[in-house]
Amino acid sequence: MDVFVLFSGGKDSSLSAILLEPFFDVTLVTCNFGFAETWETAEAVASELGFPHRVLSIDGAILESASNMAVDDGYPNRAINHLHACALKCVVSGHAIIADGTRRDDRVPMLNLPDVQRLEDTKECTYIRPLLGYGRRAVDALVDIHLEIEENESEKIEKSDYEVELRAIIEARHGHEMVRTIFPGQHLQSRVIGRRLFCV
Amino acid sequence: MDVFVLFSGGKDSSLSAILLEPFFDVTLVTCNFGFAETWETAEAVASELGFPHRVLSIDGAILESASNMAVDDGYPNRAINHLHACALKCVVSGHAIIADGTRRDDRVPMLNLPDVQRLEDTKECTYIRPLLGYGRRAVDALVDIHLEIEENESEKIEKSDYEVELRAIIEARHGHEMVRTIFPGQHLQSRVIGRRLFCV
Repeated sequence: MDVFVLFSGGKDSSLSAILLEPFFDVTLVTCNFGFAETWETAEAVASELGFPHRVLSIDGAILESASNMAVDDGYPNRAINHLHACALKCVVSGHAIIADGTRRDDRVPMLNLPDVQRLEDTKECTYIRPLLGYGRRAVDALVDIHLEIEENESEKIEKSDYEVELRAIIEARHGHEMVRTIFPGQHLQSRVIGRRLFCV
Repeated sequence: MDVFVLFSGGKDSSLSAILLEPFFDVTLVTCNFGFAETWETAEAVASELGFPHRVLSIDGAILESASNMAVDDGYPNRAINHLHACALKCVVSGHAIIADGTRRDDRVPMLNLPDVQRLEDTKECTYIRPLLGYGRRAVDALVDIHLEIEENESEKIEKSDYEVELRAIIEARHGHEMVRTIFPGQHLQSRVIGRRLFCV
């Protein structure tokens, strides 16, 4: 069975793909809204992990409206959730089984159960969140075993998640101070730089 | 890493163990409250699946109080959740990582997020629910690939889950009519009878 995993190059979506690998034919998919070329990091990490990778272009109007949400709210969570929900709908249009790196303790991006069921029912698809039953301790243990990562503050790390393009468009439309207001600087982000060999 | 998976012999806990197998050393654990010898089916299924299996004896007073809950409620859900929460606490006492077959669309047994976090924090353990991010369609697809199962109404199938001992004690204390009142007869249950060979 093919599964298409929404992929940012971060440890959660990487680990999610690794958990699916023994049971599915995994392809990683990075969404891009056409504002900044943010997929390159994900492409490089996908290659390190050994998975095929695709970039999916999504209507830039979605990023514009997410940018407006973040500025209106002074906070990025609703905007990031909106981008994730739109990305899921776009990926699933061509594929029967999709997945992402959402985990138990995440606040965003996170679809609630009714929205998950609506996505599956309206699109006749299967949406899997392999890490939803894993808390921070379990994820950290598996990451230590399977991945080499680097951690840094959001602004300094090269990633391909929604936040990178969202920051870029907010900076272009409203300036750097607005970006600093909306995104707390101390938030640690991770990027995968390699995969460790593993035998159970 | 060792993981101890609460195991009933049903398809959910079997699939949960299979999803963990590439990443952990899996041992299956069936809990028994000392009222009826209900672990034999789970032991046989564990052998079919190729996993080591243990039976964990738990204080029968917990089953008595669950029986009272079910009779008071006229409905088994609170009682089954109580048995599951007690079983998790007993299993985790000796082990660092535990898991079960809870899946996204389950109503019982199902711990809510605060109870999960309390379990992990107070017991300094890791609790994994590999199927929590899988809905019915995903579970059914994986079951078709990996397991041979038989399905029947709850009363007719040999299983080793909490419901079997709970039914037995309610029948002994209150008679068969009370069992029929509390447990709706049309509820389909499954039992694993074999494992299919699989290569990705």
